[in-house]
Amino acid sequence: MISPDDLNPRLRKAEYAVRGPIVLRAQELEAAGKKIIYCNIGNPQALRQRPLTFSRQLLSLLEYPTLLEREETARLYPGDVRARATNILSKLPEGLGAYSQSTGVPFIRQAVADFIHRRDDIPVRKEQIILTDGASKGVQAVILALLRQSSDSFLIPIPQYPLYSATLTLQGGGQAGYFLDEENGWQLREELLTESIELSRKNKQNPVCIVVINPGNPTGSVLSRDNISMVIRFAKKHRLAILADEVYQENIYDPGRPFHSFAKVMHELGEAEVPLFSVHSVSKGFLGECGHRGGYLECRNIPEGVMAEFVKLQSIALCSNLPGQISTYAMVAPPVEGEESYPQYLKEKQAILGSLKRKAVLLGEGVNGIDGLSADVPPGAMYAFVRLEIPPYTDPGDSPDREQELKNLEFDYCLKLLEETGICVVPGSGFGQVAGTLHFRTTFLPPEEEMEELVGKLRTFHEGYRRTMKAHELQD
Amino acid sequence: MISPDDLNPRLRKAEYAVRGPIVLRAQELEAAGKKIIYCNIGNPQALRQRPLTFSRQLLSLLEYPTLLEREETARLYPGDVRARATNILSKLPEGLGAYSQSTGVPFIRQAVADFIHRRDDIPVRKEQIILTDGASKGVQAVILALLRQSSDSFLIPIPQYPLYSATLTLQGGGQAGYFLDEENGWQLREELLTESIELSRKNKQNPVCIVVINPGNPTGSVLSRDNISMVIRFAKKHRLAILADEVYQENIYDPGRPFHSFAKVMHELGEAEVPLFSVHSVSKGFLGECGHRGGYLECRNIPEGVMAEFVKLQSIALCSNLPGQISTYAMVAPPVEGEESYPQYLKEKQAILGSLKRKAVLLGEGVNGIDGLSADVPPGAMYAFVRLEIPPYTDPGDSPDREQELKNLEFDYCLKLLEETGICVVPGSGFGQVAGTLHFRTTFLPPEEEMEELVGKLRTFHEGYRRTMKAHELQD
Repeated sequence: MISPDDLNPRLRKAEYAVRGPIVLRAQELEAAGKKIIYCNIGNPQALRQRPLTFSRQLLSLLEYPTLLEREETARLYPGDVRARATNILSKLPEGLGAYSQSTGVPFIRQAVADFIHRRDDIPVRKEQIILTDGASKGVQAVILALLRQSSDSFLIPIPQYPLYSATLTLQGGGQAGYFLDEENGWQLREELLTESIELSRKNKQNPVCIVVINPGNPTGSVLSRDNISMVIRFAKKHRLAILADEVYQENIYDPGRPFHSFAKVMHELGEAEVPLFSVHSVSKGFLGECGHRGGYLECRNIPEGVMAEFVKLQSIALCSNLPGQISTYAMVAPPVEGEESYPQYLKEKQAILGSLKRKAVLLGEGVNGIDGLSADVPPGAMYAFVRLEIPPYTDPGDSPDREQELKNLEFDYCLKLLEETGICVVPGSGFGQVAGTLHFRTTFLPPEEEMEELVGKLRTFHEGYRRTMKAHELQD
Repeated sequence: MISPDDLNPRLRKAEYAVRGPIVLRAQELEAAGKKIIYCNIGNPQALRQRPLTFSRQLLSLLEYPTLLEREETARLYPGDVRARATNILSKLPEGLGAYSQSTGVPFIRQAVADFIHRRDDIPVRKEQIILTDGASKGVQAVILALLRQSSDSFLIPIPQYPLYSATLTLQGGGQAGYFLDEENGWQLREELLTESIELSRKNKQNPVCIVVINPGNPTGSVLSRDNISMVIRFAKKHRLAILADEVYQENIYDPGRPFHSFAKVMHELGEAEVPLFSVHSVSKGFLGECGHRGGYLECRNIPEGVMAEFVKLQSIALCSNLPGQISTYAMVAPPVEGEESYPQYLKEKQAILGSLKRKAVLLGEGVNGIDGLSADVPPGAMYAFVRLEIPPYTDPGDSPDREQELKNLEFDYCLKLLEETGICVVPGSGFGQVAGTLHFRTTFLPPEEEMEELVGKLRTFHEGYRRTMKAHELQD
């Protein structure tokens, strides 16, 4: 019989806490009848966010084009959506059932290029765009392509989204963590980047790429333009490629902290050498279409011969799924003013983003009102990375097993939170954090009325947990 | 600027001829206005095969569930499909927009298990099933998981589907080719398997798995039950896992050569130790839903601890796309007798399979009627691997550059076939073949009237090519 020892050791070593043991326990509890609030993952529609009518109407017609020939359809679908579906089928007569070109349907790649041009007012061609099954597949392609040998390393943030560490572990590449500055809204700091790259080189690694997640996961931060410029200069100086995870670019809640794409800042700096890979997705933003696995990889400062290798890599898995490609199209080419669908589209978009903004405040302020919990009110993304203090356990100390003890404490906290309240969050150790600190990541995706309840439950649980721990400590 | 030399050498080395240079040239010609008949890839709907009404109606309702509340819908969709959609939404209230569990939606995994049980009358549990983005992703997961080190090797057929060689190259595993027996309907032969595994060990490799494609790609063969038993005994003797690519299991055209699954034969042999991974897909069969990227991986004789690693691997890319999961559900749980949709479903299924069967004969007999071309009339799958002879070039010889010369000749033949007739096929070297032989792979997917024309064009081209080559030879 095959045993785990017969498997790839890199697979066994890989960890992915967002769907780790706490989540498996939540599924068990749910199967046994307990109500679980899944705050472990950015999965908006699982928490009752409604899909945008426009994208779903379009998909519905394209899945069953016979509808376009029926008169009832005119009463069920707005004229502009029917016209859009007809137009798509004229350019894609084979519909959603055929493999597309490896890089995706040409007119959708062009629509992505147009979207970037509208967003940033910078030049972009469809040849720079590869449509992918969600952003994850774009990230995995870049990591696979840029690792020449196991001594090559990627600079990744601490805390990070564990897709990066897990994929690097799977592909046998090195990880050089750089700390984000928690005291300063989780921005990057040049001296911490330099420390990280120097340490990586000291460890005989060859750093080839820096990963930046903006808006931040798990931090909910938004990087300033200056911060992005600094990263680009740093990458240039050290001959690094940049992998910019920009999937939360529409999740911006503080008008004073707008989103700046790496592509735009690079263009403004006149930087034409640093290779840039940027990923985007239909799973986040206000679409929240996680189940459709749509997204794209934008490549910049990448010569043709290198692009050809990315195209080949894509072709080995044939192409990304067509409904996901259409979802991506709906994201980048939404209804425009004057079209019949526009008012509803705008209303739904504003309602979702407005609600997310209120929930970011509810969560951030709620958490900060609990003694021993703290977080920024997230200006972006869908998460808060909540700092957890449980004195005297989290007071500074130097026991040799301290890190493991703290990790156990953090895990115990999250597990008990789940068991007692049904709230499912992810321990900070799954993302990485400064030694001696504890965190958990939670989304702010539950419906507004549940968010208030969630903050209340969190307070009651937290206070109880601290009391119990205090009692333990006095007994010891 | 980044250059191809900065990329992973395994990526640069990987080849995927099914979407290689001939196909890129075809796309150029098409863009310039030439009519191309894409016989390079099993992509039925690109060649005007119509999707099954049932699956598309289901997807259409699930993409836009509001339809279920409208009275017009009753006139557009049969009652059983509406009931099915309502039932699915009761089990999956978040719909198609949320990530599912990493391994897929539980009731769909159960439906897959029920399908296998109906097909084979063998025990199977949903815990053995992982839903994947097409079969390719299942194959890639197995290869990644079973390679412990670069000296581990997979036995793969010659000719093979280049997903296997490409993924092994990407993941840095060894390839030990075993020849299929062209003279004997491309069955496997034990002595050729033994030769292959002994050579692999001699090359200091450690064989861990044997890949079998049944029905065959690119060969169109169907393996006998005895042949499958032999492979299972061979795998047991040499402690190999089996990766069974069974995506063409519904594409059977000769009632005398039925499909036998590895799972069923294993069960009948009482074999409870050899690890078996079987993949299936919505892209082939009579659905031909390539664009939906749906499929599953069935695992057998795999203990829980090993399954857990596969689940983790799946979780790193979150989950397979939900429309693909629904397509898979539609494949494994089609309308049954007595349901309103059943007559149409049956009619469409029979029309597609009947047409494929006629086209297999058209192609096979057509090719055999051309001097210098030969192939089995394919009893299965969607392909013929056509043997090509261009005397005197393909006569036995021993020039030191002979293999490269033959490869060039084969490529030249396929390229000229494309340029002159618009027929796009893939050179045999993309799949592997016995030294000294030439082939090309073609699908038999074009519509029937075009298939006749295709055979005619092939004949004219082939005769002309032979004449030209003869003239060259006389000049030399």
